[in-house]
Amino acid sequence: MLIPLDRDADTPLYRQIETWLRKAIDADLLAPGTRLPAARVLARDLGLSRITVDAAYAELISEGLLETRGSGGTLVARAISRRRPAGQPTWVSGHPNHAEEQPGIIDFSGGGGDDSLFPFPAFLRGLKTRHREAPSGLLGFPDPAGEWSLRTSIAHICACQGLLLPPEEILITGGSQQVLTLTANALASGGDTVLVEEPTYAKAIALFRALGLKVVGLPCDAQGPVLEQFQGLVEAHRPRFAYLIPNFRNPTGSCMSASRRRRLVALAEGLGLPILEDDYVGGLRYEGQPLPALRTLARPGQVIYTSTFSKLLAPGLCAGFLAAEGPLLERLRTMKGLLGFSSSRVFQCGLADFVGVGSYRNHIRRSARLFRKRRDLMCAALAQHLPAARFTRPTGGLFLWVELPSPCHGATLVAACVREGVRVAFGEDFYVDPLPTTRKFMRLNFAMSPTESIPVGIERLARALRQTR
Amino acid sequence: MLIPLDRDADTPLYRQIETWLRKAIDADLLAPGTRLPAARVLARDLGLSRITVDAAYAELISEGLLETRGSGGTLVARAISRRRPAGQPTWVSGHPNHAEEQPGIIDFSGGGGDDSLFPFPAFLRGLKTRHREAPSGLLGFPDPAGEWSLRTSIAHICACQGLLLPPEEILITGGSQQVLTLTANALASGGDTVLVEEPTYAKAIALFRALGLKVVGLPCDAQGPVLEQFQGLVEAHRPRFAYLIPNFRNPTGSCMSASRRRRLVALAEGLGLPILEDDYVGGLRYEGQPLPALRTLARPGQVIYTSTFSKLLAPGLCAGFLAAEGPLLERLRTMKGLLGFSSSRVFQCGLADFVGVGSYRNHIRRSARLFRKRRDLMCAALAQHLPAARFTRPTGGLFLWVELPSPCHGATLVAACVREGVRVAFGEDFYVDPLPTTRKFMRLNFAMSPTESIPVGIERLARALRQTR
Repeated sequence: MLIPLDRDADTPLYRQIETWLRKAIDADLLAPGTRLPAARVLARDLGLSRITVDAAYAELISEGLLETRGSGGTLVARAISRRRPAGQPTWVSGHPNHAEEQPGIIDFSGGGGDDSLFPFPAFLRGLKTRHREAPSGLLGFPDPAGEWSLRTSIAHICACQGLLLPPEEILITGGSQQVLTLTANALASGGDTVLVEEPTYAKAIALFRALGLKVVGLPCDAQGPVLEQFQGLVEAHRPRFAYLIPNFRNPTGSCMSASRRRRLVALAEGLGLPILEDDYVGGLRYEGQPLPALRTLARPGQVIYTSTFSKLLAPGLCAGFLAAEGPLLERLRTMKGLLGFSSSRVFQCGLADFVGVGSYRNHIRRSARLFRKRRDLMCAALAQHLPAARFTRPTGGLFLWVELPSPCHGATLVAACVREGVRVAFGEDFYVDPLPTTRKFMRLNFAMSPTESIPVGIERLARALRQTR
Repeated sequence: MLIPLDRDADTPLYRQIETWLRKAIDADLLAPGTRLPAARVLARDLGLSRITVDAAYAELISEGLLETRGSGGTLVARAISRRRPAGQPTWVSGHPNHAEEQPGIIDFSGGGGDDSLFPFPAFLRGLKTRHREAPSGLLGFPDPAGEWSLRTSIAHICACQGLLLPPEEILITGGSQQVLTLTANALASGGDTVLVEEPTYAKAIALFRALGLKVVGLPCDAQGPVLEQFQGLVEAHRPRFAYLIPNFRNPTGSCMSASRRRRLVALAEGLGLPILEDDYVGGLRYEGQPLPALRTLARPGQVIYTSTFSKLLAPGLCAGFLAAEGPLLERLRTMKGLLGFSSSRVFQCGLADFVGVGSYRNHIRRSARLFRKRRDLMCAALAQHLPAARFTRPTGGLFLWVELPSPCHGATLVAACVREGVRVAFGEDFYVDPLPTTRKFMRLNFAMSPTESIPVGIERLARALRQTR
């Protein structure tokens, strides 16, 4: 224990030690029961005589902050009152999705699915088997590209969805956000422009801006990006890449039509514009025909494809992947290693086992059944409690995009929602250039809340909205 | 399953389906035993008549690539010979630390400790208990700052080492490399300069350069950075921050002296230069007195402190932390969330339990005892087999920095080492500006290899060196 001492100060050294220890104990940084070094050892480490340390210890023992054990050890006392309360102070978290801060709140604001469906005990059993079979394999330095077993499993899942991605072209990531960071670093640098659908995933806009990129919004209609404007914007702003979410776009829940996909990819190819395709909920479709990934329509090297397990399994897993080709793949892989985006090998192996043995398909099927039911419940509750709100019933994904009859003030609405015990994502955050008209929208996640709380939550929302008028 | 079809092509549609499936099966992207969609379902998804799909399936069944089950399901055949061999092709990994590629090789080139010491089963047992007690806590969206329980445990560990870091000031990271990325993004942007000790951690130089930063090397003597040059370089290059490794520096294994620490911190303060202090092996000291962290000598806000569990526990855990204060802390935390640096919550909780219950201190003590023994063995083997090599016995950490009597050619040495079955890290990579004289150095990791292989490995190294003369 290296207690910092000022040998030139007027305060005697034993007093400095005593003060430092008292501060550490008071702040709960030395936990009750912590064994302190023997006075002899501490004296040696600090270059002092043992008497100095003994004097400091004696003072704190007399105050009841330290106690001695029979064997002669000195411990931080087990029963002391402290200034800092135990547990996390409520102001620390700050994460918008930590709904547990307010008990009983119903949270429609999140970005994930329902993690209570994830069979965690089975996942742990898999890890145990893995470790028994290859103990050293789990703990060494990770390959920046990711575990081969997980890459193979992902290739199999994608093939079942009609997407041929050889495992060599797959990089494991810690989720979508990492893929955005990697792509932005690989394809652009400060001052460059990136094109995004408007509205789009709020954290994509925030990330690109934090990296010093200009973000240009691409107007969309019900079929997807408006192609006439797409071409004009590309020619005017020369973006380094386009970030697109063709399936159940976050936040609107809408899908790009098949013909729009084909024409968009052809146009982008002609303009030399790379595409980052974020297929964040892949197979989570409740009805209607699946649509081809942009990646299958494009020339090799044109599209970086990414998907994640955070929405489908559990956000706490922090796992996803990207697929790319050729020199760009090499660039992304090198960048991934350097930026420190390697994910825990243990976790990757556990995931590989889980998604490889058919449990994954069952999990998706079960999730889809449940989420469809919740979507229908939420639509019905909206029709009942907010009859003036307009929305399109999404055919998959997690989100309902609701348009209110008139714009409302974000902060006022948020405050009213908190009072009523419900949380929603306000639409404005999803726009590159928010306008007064964009204040009419909100995004509701219908998948993550328990089924029985959905009608209650919508009723609360309706009450909150009445207060803002 | 969305098989891409070209309806304008001359090839009939049933043939296109057949070709796509054959390709997927041949490439092992559809694994043996995978259940294909019923012909009826696939026909509906693709907008075709069922007869078309039946024709394609029938052809592949007759070739033995598909098989039918009693219940009428169609599967990828379980026994087919494939072009791609099972398992990972050897060229895929590419990670320098994956020593398993060459059986029997002795690897002194790595950057980690010995992960076989990590009590993995106990770690898993902890996770299971955690999940039983709070099932939802492990799987939700992670707080970008990290789990409170792990931050508290880290605060306790640091206090025992004389470093008072309140948990509020700690951010959990996926290892040191992430901290370098975060710091570089928070304090600098493309074109700016960063100051590093020379030689230093090779992946720091590579990362800073990949982010578009200029890297300036700071000459060091046996006590640490040469202060006269430090001041001159800061004034000449105006770096945004200095990246320093005061304890057992990677790669040299040397420690900055206490008086040099004090004077360096005071100088940096006067020059307004922030410091990133990388304490990558913290408590892994084998003899001698511990030295104060720069963080304890500096004014609040002057030093970002970071350490990692990758070296002390297992690299595959991908876990570490940083501590900072005030607006810089907020900036790092926001940046962390946006860049996608959240780590798996499950893993953080498991780690919190492990490092919180005293097992960690025992683990460090056991590791230190073993690594000291291995260090002594390696020093003895070097004296015996390479008597002309010069090195200083490090008092902690993982690395021996060996100076050969004359410079040698990197590629030739690496090739000779591979032939002899040993791997070392060539010194040149650790320099900002490699010179012919820097070709005399190599870094040997004495901690990560099994004890009995150390003398054998050094003998092989001596043979390899003889071949390069």
